[in-house]
Amino acid sequence: MKIVIAGLGLIGGSMAKALQRKGYVADGFDMPAVAGEAVRCGAIGRAVASFDGYDVVFVALPPDAAMQFIGGNRFKDGAIVADICGVKGVLESFVFSRPRNFRYVGCHPMAGKEVSGFASSCADLFDGASVIVTENDRTDGAAVQALVSLLTEMGFARVVRCSAAYHDKKIAYTSQLAHIVSNAYVKSETANGYAGFTGGSFQDMTRIAGVDETVWTRLYFLNRENIAAELERLIGELERYARALRAEDEEGLEGLLREGRLRKQALDAQS
Amino acid sequence: MKIVIAGLGLIGGSMAKALQRKGYVADGFDMPAVAGEAVRCGAIGRAVASFDGYDVVFVALPPDAAMQFIGGNRFKDGAIVADICGVKGVLESFVFSRPRNFRYVGCHPMAGKEVSGFASSCADLFDGASVIVTENDRTDGAAVQALVSLLTEMGFARVVRCSAAYHDKKIAYTSQLAHIVSNAYVKSETANGYAGFTGGSFQDMTRIAGVDETVWTRLYFLNRENIAAELERLIGELERYARALRAEDEEGLEGLLREGRLRKQALDAQS
Repeated sequence: MKIVIAGLGLIGGSMAKALQRKGYVADGFDMPAVAGEAVRCGAIGRAVASFDGYDVVFVALPPDAAMQFIGGNRFKDGAIVADICGVKGVLESFVFSRPRNFRYVGCHPMAGKEVSGFASSCADLFDGASVIVTENDRTDGAAVQALVSLLTEMGFARVVRCSAAYHDKKIAYTSQLAHIVSNAYVKSETANGYAGFTGGSFQDMTRIAGVDETVWTRLYFLNRENIAAELERLIGELERYARALRAEDEEGLEGLLREGRLRKQALDAQS
Repeated sequence: MKIVIAGLGLIGGSMAKALQRKGYVADGFDMPAVAGEAVRCGAIGRAVASFDGYDVVFVALPPDAAMQFIGGNRFKDGAIVADICGVKGVLESFVFSRPRNFRYVGCHPMAGKEVSGFASSCADLFDGASVIVTENDRTDGAAVQALVSLLTEMGFARVVRCSAAYHDKKIAYTSQLAHIVSNAYVKSETANGYAGFTGGSFQDMTRIAGVDETVWTRLYFLNRENIAAELERLIGELERYARALRAEDEEGLEGLLREGRLRKQALDAQS
């Protein structure tokens, strides 16, 4: 099985290293300096720029570049082509709206770091993590199975299969909204000199505040309906607490907090 | 030095155990079942109900109970009386508004757990944590020094000294607001079946969602001006992101995210 990874950043580089650890040698594509470094450190076999000789093509690029890559290259008949983008609806629409000789499967690793680039990639990034595989009624079942096997080899411990629409709705809430809240949270003037005034709540709330806006803006934009809906819901919820505080409605505030605690308990019981 | 701890919950119980670890034997006060258990396990020497024989009195009770305790008991002349409440302004106002023969110092350990009660207390709860000591121009300097020494013996690694007003403003933001946001965040319907759809962002955002409303409502209420102001600021900030998404203003959204990233970098550089 010949594998190539297009894009050797944090995710693509870690995929190469995770596969290499298990005895697979993937080829890779990136800017010459990055691809050269990946060859030198043994993460990939060769740096390549054509992709029609591969059985599996991982497209580890941001959404627009991924669509450009998939639309602009030739692949082997029946090749498995899997992107790793954080939005799946637009990718799937793009791929299925045109003729193709390859088998597309959407993929989204639930792993990351607050840093990016090949230098930050590591073989164990996916160990124990979850990965989402998106499919619809035109997705090839055998391609999904083969991809799931490879993802398991990379260290992923849990594979969730769902539709692109379901993925985008869930991720808008579990990840994208959380990054917005964290990014907004740090902006208060009161944050200055926070050290010494927290036992961890502030750090947890703001760990993911420093999103790379050049990557995330586009992700947000491509999933904006879902994110805006969740964000407006959260704002509406927060306004209830603010009103209770301003109205000195202690009972109302207690009710709001109770509602959240019971909800949290129910979610913990689910997991 | 004779020490007594009134209230043997998570904080008071942990204080007793942390002191015991260093060879101090504090006495304690709580409901008979709790105090009895604390004696049996060696966390305190004796269960007591009068406090005028002690050099140091830790009042590890919620704000209203702490004020009732301080106002309703006799203490030795010059005894150090220190509460551990999460709001300091009301405590200080209460203590300094009436005649007293003891030396009051406000104290707030930056340590906790998502569970409460003596059964959850442990000797190492404060190891490496920060503790805030509040003082004003009527606070006795020697009492502060003695208290700081004891807190250091308990394992606290950092002591921050500031006014009660400064404490309440900072804590409204670093802790109390974070708990509200987390508590509100979990209420979305989309949270159902979140497992598999997160790499940790959701868990960090919602770790502290399950606040005990019977304790926190009162804390919020006693610091409501500061919290409402921070909450309204956050809501206003989140509305900017929502407007940019709805207006399909990609550039505006990128600007908002950049602002948050730069702010996060500046904060990280401070710590």
